[in-house]
Amino acid sequence: MLPLGLPDTVREALLAPLVDHHCDAVRRDELSRAQYELLIGGGVPAPPGTTHFDTPVGVAVRRWCAPVLDLPPHAPPAVYLARRAELGAAEANGRLLRAAGVAAFLVDTGTEDDDLLPAAEMGRQGGAAADEIVRVEQVEHDVAEMAASAADYLEGLAEELAARAAGAVGLSTVAGHLHGLDFDAARPSRGSVIAAAGRRLADPKEPPVDPVTLRHLLWTAVDVARERGLPLQLHAGAGPDAGHAAPHRTDPALLTGFLRALQPAGVPVILLHCYPFHRQAAHLAAAYPHVHVDVGRALTRTGAGAWRVVDELLELAPFHKQLFGSGCSGVAETAHLGAVAFRRALGRALKERLEEGEWSAADAARVAYMVGSGNARRVYRL
Amino acid sequence: MLPLGLPDTVREALLAPLVDHHCDAVRRDELSRAQYELLIGGGVPAPPGTTHFDTPVGVAVRRWCAPVLDLPPHAPPAVYLARRAELGAAEANGRLLRAAGVAAFLVDTGTEDDDLLPAAEMGRQGGAAADEIVRVEQVEHDVAEMAASAADYLEGLAEELAARAAGAVGLSTVAGHLHGLDFDAARPSRGSVIAAAGRRLADPKEPPVDPVTLRHLLWTAVDVARERGLPLQLHAGAGPDAGHAAPHRTDPALLTGFLRALQPAGVPVILLHCYPFHRQAAHLAAAYPHVHVDVGRALTRTGAGAWRVVDELLELAPFHKQLFGSGCSGVAETAHLGAVAFRRALGRALKERLEEGEWSAADAARVAYMVGSGNARRVYRL
Amino acid sequence: MLPLGLPDTVREALLAPLVDHHCDAVRRDELSRAQYELLIGGGVPAPPGTTHFDTPVGVAVRRWCAPVLDLPPHAPPAVYLARRAELGAAEANGRLLRAAGVAAFLVDTGTEDDDLLPAAEMGRQGGAAADEIVRVEQVEHDVAEMAASAADYLEGLAEELAARAAGAVGLSTVAGHLHGLDFDAARPSRGSVIAAAGRRLADPKEPPVDPVTLRHLLWTAVDVARERGLPLQLHAGAGPDAGHAAPHRTDPALLTGFLRALQPAGVPVILLHCYPFHRQAAHLAAAYPHVHVDVGRALTRTGAGAWRVVDELLELAPFHKQLFGSGCSGVAETAHLGAVAFRRALGRALKERLEEGEWSAADAARVAYMVGSGNARRVYRL
Repeated sequence: MLPLGLPDTVREALLAPLVDHHCDAVRRDELSRAQYELLIGGGVPAPPGTTHFDTPVGVAVRRWCAPVLDLPPHAPPAVYLARRAELGAAEANGRLLRAAGVAAFLVDTGTEDDDLLPAAEMGRQGGAAADEIVRVEQVEHDVAEMAASAADYLEGLAEELAARAAGAVGLSTVAGHLHGLDFDAARPSRGSVIAAAGRRLADPKEPPVDPVTLRHLLWTAVDVARERGLPLQLHAGAGPDAGHAAPHRTDPALLTGFLRALQPAGVPVILLHCYPFHRQAAHLAAAYPHVHVDVGRALTRTGAGAWRVVDELLELAPFHKQLFGSGCSGVAETAHLGAVAFRRALGRALKERLEEGEWSAADAARVAYMVGSGNARRVYRL
Repeated sequence: MLPLGLPDTVREALLAPLVDHHCDAVRRDELSRAQYELLIGGGVPAPPGTTHFDTPVGVAVRRWCAPVLDLPPHAPPAVYLARRAELGAAEANGRLLRAAGVAAFLVDTGTEDDDLLPAAEMGRQGGAAADEIVRVEQVEHDVAEMAASAADYLEGLAEELAARAAGAVGLSTVAGHLHGLDFDAARPSRGSVIAAAGRRLADPKEPPVDPVTLRHLLWTAVDVARERGLPLQLHAGAGPDAGHAAPHRTDPALLTGFLRALQPAGVPVILLHCYPFHRQAAHLAAAYPHVHVDVGRALTRTGAGAWRVVDELLELAPFHKQLFGSGCSGVAETAHLGAVAFRRALGRALKERLEEGEWSAADAARVAYMVGSGNARRVYRL
Repeated sequence: MLPLGLPDTVREALLAPLVDHHCDAVRRDELSRAQYELLIGGGVPAPPGTTHFDTPVGVAVRRWCAPVLDLPPHAPPAVYLARRAELGAAEANGRLLRAAGVAAFLVDTGTEDDDLLPAAEMGRQGGAAADEIVRVEQVEHDVAEMAASAADYLEGLAEELAARAAGAVGLSTVAGHLHGLDFDAARPSRGSVIAAAGRRLADPKEPPVDPVTLRHLLWTAVDVARERGLPLQLHAGAGPDAGHAAPHRTDPALLTGFLRALQPAGVPVILLHCYPFHRQAAHLAAAYPHVHVDVGRALTRTGAGAWRVVDELLELAPFHKQLFGSGCSGVAETAHLGAVAFRRALGRALKERLEEGEWSAADAARVAYMVGSGNARRVYRL
């Protein structure tokens, strides 16, 4: 899997168990081809005459996941899906999750769905520890559905976030997908929050998109994170779902004001995914002590192209600020693919730095451990 | 021309005739050095003491076009231009267009100029079929010059677009260059359109830059495209002309709202050029079923650097959504250079994927056919 | 230092003395580890448990500067700093500046600090000529502190800029860091300038951040530059200091309107640093005759990753518009590292173009001289 010619110490560091600091839950039910394509294709069907297997992630599934299911690399889509069905979802998921070589999954519990593998089960099947990242918009949604009044909603929000955070290792927000990251950085005024809560309760079944509601939610999450010493994950970069905010509104640079406002709180922040703005994210991680970065889901989405994304992050981001996260989502394949892409991409970047005489092998091995697991253990206090 | 070591099937696929789905017309008259430099240099003279041959495209002309005119690679500019003059424009154009190895040129008839090769002639000289892409701003300009009143203008616009589209395989718009892509996505109100038409007719010789006029034009084009089953090409990315909209206003991500509004119409969209925002364009092509992408003119403009641009597009864009277009413009050299850069760049990307074990040779050959011609045949119903 | 396999003429061109057309002054006093880390880390301490040596620039210091101080490559940080202290700052600075292989330093005198090496001293220690670039915000600051009234301030500004420019080879502005590049391009009205001057004098010790004040300063600088035939350097791209403008506001594309307004003045402009927007900057350099570009500080900040940054600039920027500047700042190591990164990166880019048959060796050598020193000699009339 790794490039040839790497020193043994670097190979060992790259193959050591990872901490996957951000993954979404994956489906545990049997999937039809149409369902499977939707899950690897960002939620929209491929146009007539085409298939989502003709994408970077589709090719990567056939290359790297087929062998895990006892097939030769590059097995055709139909063969792959038939074998997956033959093994059954439980066996396929278990094999793929274990193949990822992960010591701990930090699972974002953003979507409630009985067809999704719960975090603990994901750990069990993957032979790994599992911890929870609380998606604040999910908590907000639960509170909004139950609240009888704006006051009820606001009180419930703070209480429920604190309660859920008690069992978690971090919080996450998808405000960037729902609204964009171009929101006002300041904590909203009490008056505006109460007014927004009233509007919010008029349609509690929808996800929150009002910027005042989202800002209040974010700042409440910051309060909880600070009290509990938890980091806050911020989804950034172009969301794979066509309903998400337009790409240019998800540039993490738009968060600069919020990151500055947050700095005194001492809450570590991790910018997730970030593609194609990962260079901007790297800059923020270099400029602000509390800011960290991953390229998450881009590892899987870009497939054979992931090496450049990882290499571009290495251009500027401090090595103690980069984390591995698979950004796994939908199908267990993505957990494996994220880990494969990360190890191969970092291996290629390190090999080049060694061959060019830019780095020592000792540094290369050390950085591989840091990014693969050490930084996450420090930031999440695992 | 292609990288060594590619499997025969992949070589054959890369060398197969291309469909150049977007080219502008090229000059057919004899050109002085000053004229030639203007045409390869974006329309502005090089500063004193410098030459536009000291650019990526200038070096590429000497490298890849000199042999087509029987000169050694890297011939000096003066030698190249002398040989070109010696052969005469007609012979040079014919050689260069045929060297491109193109089965069909889809020619954007955006500029009316007797010194430009008409589409049919471009096909004849290039040994290829030729079809027309109707530039909607050109139609608008013709209508505006003839219209006696706002009502006349609006009626004429719809009629003339429909009439011109009847003989074409697609429509194109340069609204992104004239105004920027940061326009309101919605179809403008009838009242605002009539008011804008009045303003427009006060100065019909200028290109349209008013956003209401442009939005009305775009939506009228969408109506025509839907009725006739034609795709719509949208120029995006930094235009080479210094008078074009500022680069940050040409990011195709700014089109997200318009693309969403357009989706129900079932009109295929192709984002053209896109550099340096091709990663954003790739994301849009991945997220929306009707959106396609090329890097067009960037193939020629970036010369030896085109491989990275093509490779970055491959990071995220579905393989059934990428099209080859030379973005050819001004001189016939650019048609050849676009084809050379495309074949070399895609060859390099595929070779790397094969050597890294990421792709199979069968997939590589198939994708080369898709991007080189198959996708265009499907989208344009050729 | 250079890649193997380059033709001798190209090696010679790459190793020829450079003109470093933009460097900040470096510290001449002895530095503690904490001070040193701050200087290579953008002015903020590394978080507990981490070190700024775990960054691209930190690794590059150990790799490329350690041998200059007689240490093996990759010496540990503590060993490196101990050796630096043992030699003394003067000896270390002299060695590092000479190692850069620079014929002339153009020193931006933006910060007044007795601990900084004056420009002339930087030249003497580096065995090079030294010329001054006047930082217009520094002049403005001096004038604001002395002015008794708005009229006094405005008159003093023009006079002092002209006086300082008399001994300099260029002017520079950090308006992009202080405010962002998204300012109104037009010269501000006399009335608004007088009003802004009044506000400005209320707090003259702070740097100017008001856009009217900055625009007036810029246009006054343009007047002076035009009169004296001097170029104007514009800092662009993400500033390394956490207090600088948010990255998305430093995209040089935002300057398009200002660059157009400036064109009739005939003042050459150089866009500095530009990362991660260097492709946009390359476009501007291609589209406007008076616009030039470097990647400056990004050479040092991105360390082993600098080759891609340089290569991306080569995608579009005319070769007669690219300049070498180390963007050196804080410690003398950065002058050496900038030169090393430039030579290695350009060497790699040229080697690839030669191996791919894209360029001739004669062109490669010529472009290396142009970018390394020739263009600067032409633009600055050295």
